[in-house]
Amino acid sequence: MAHIDLGNDNPGIRALLAYRPETAGPLSQFTDFLLRGDNTLTRGERELIAAYVSKRNECAYCARSHSATAAAQLPGGAGQVERTLADLDAAPVSGKLRALLDIAGLVQVSGQMVTGEAVAKARAAGATDLEVHDTVLIAAAFCMFNRYVDGLGAPAPDDPAQYAASARHLVEHGYSGGNGGTDSPPMRGVTGG
Amino acid sequence: MAHIDLGNDNPGIRALLAYRPETAGPLSQFTDFLLRGDNTLTRGERELIAAYVSKRNECAYCARSHSATAAAQLPGGAGQVERTLADLDAAPVSGKLRALLDIAGLVQVSGQMVTGEAVAKARAAGATDLEVHDTVLIAAAFCMFNRYVDGLGAPAPDDPAQYAASARHLVEHGYSGGNGGTDSPPMRGVTGG
Repeated sequence: MAHIDLGNDNPGIRALLAYRPETAGPLSQFTDFLLRGDNTLTRGERELIAAYVSKRNECAYCARSHSATAAAQLPGGAGQVERTLADLDAAPVSGKLRALLDIAGLVQVSGQMVTGEAVAKARAAGATDLEVHDTVLIAAAFCMFNRYVDGLGAPAPDDPAQYAASARHLVEHGYSGGNGGTDSPPMRGVTGG
Repeated sequence: MAHIDLGNDNPGIRALLAYRPETAGPLSQFTDFLLRGDNTLTRGERELIAAYVSKRNECAYCARSHSATAAAQLPGGAGQVERTLADLDAAPVSGKLRALLDIAGLVQVSGQMVTGEAVAKARAAGATDLEVHDTVLIAAAFCMFNRYVDGLGAPAPDDPAQYAASARHLVEHGYSGGNGGTDSPPMRGVTGG
């Protein structure tokens, strides 16, 4: 049960966004650009970074939600996501993405953990400065979202089908264009305005 | 030195916002509402929460910057900020603000650390659900900003006068109305658009 009366029955962060539309608007625009805007990192790769950080923060809702959205957009599907989250060293991803996920894991602990060596390794594997930047920002952002969701005790559904349905909706409509699932009305304040 | 070539000489997060205007726009709007929008928590109280979390995350730039901005807007000035950051139990703040800072400190560690008991204590001290929500979101947001700044090695000036000047500018113009200091041109992408 949530720590405060959210006044709606949406799951996870969607309950919080509906509760506070004034912050939901810019947060949704930010997330939509960061995870779906033009980028040399694919949408699936960026969702995988979000899922990886959320798993490390033990945020059940965000880890399930972004794992499902990553699986829906990566060529290797759910298996690729599960194997990456289980063991980064053996992850079935490119050397560049593995080095970026390594940086994301450092950011999850603390910004100070990121070393010039870790960045040099990503660069040697083909990462650009902008890809390093976006990886750090995605990892940092999910250190926010994970704490936001769990810090207010937002409800996390158990049914995997709900996450899959929400992922299908996100793949099609994004984070700022409407709600995060097909089973409820659009949320106020997250329509990109 | 920053881990990537940021292409500008701004300090701290201002260097990152100038580097990536696409994310700077919504982040600046978000921050401006969260720390300066209409609220039953004063601007000084919200800046104090930001400074408290940044200090706990050992983010030198953010801790100095938000301490200066809190000091400029709290009745007790710099002394009130310093004493609060040094020892929360003996902080010269209201019982409500102390209970909210306690929740912010739990969020800084992990969202899962926030208990119904901590929230009940804040409520007993007079906090509303919305104040608990905003406290959790401010604390979570600074777990992002601190990691963003330190994860990319953004430069932190040593001169306290720079933070004081930046605080004066922020008090007057906010986070989405222009740059964060009086000594450089406005940044692209942080003009609220």
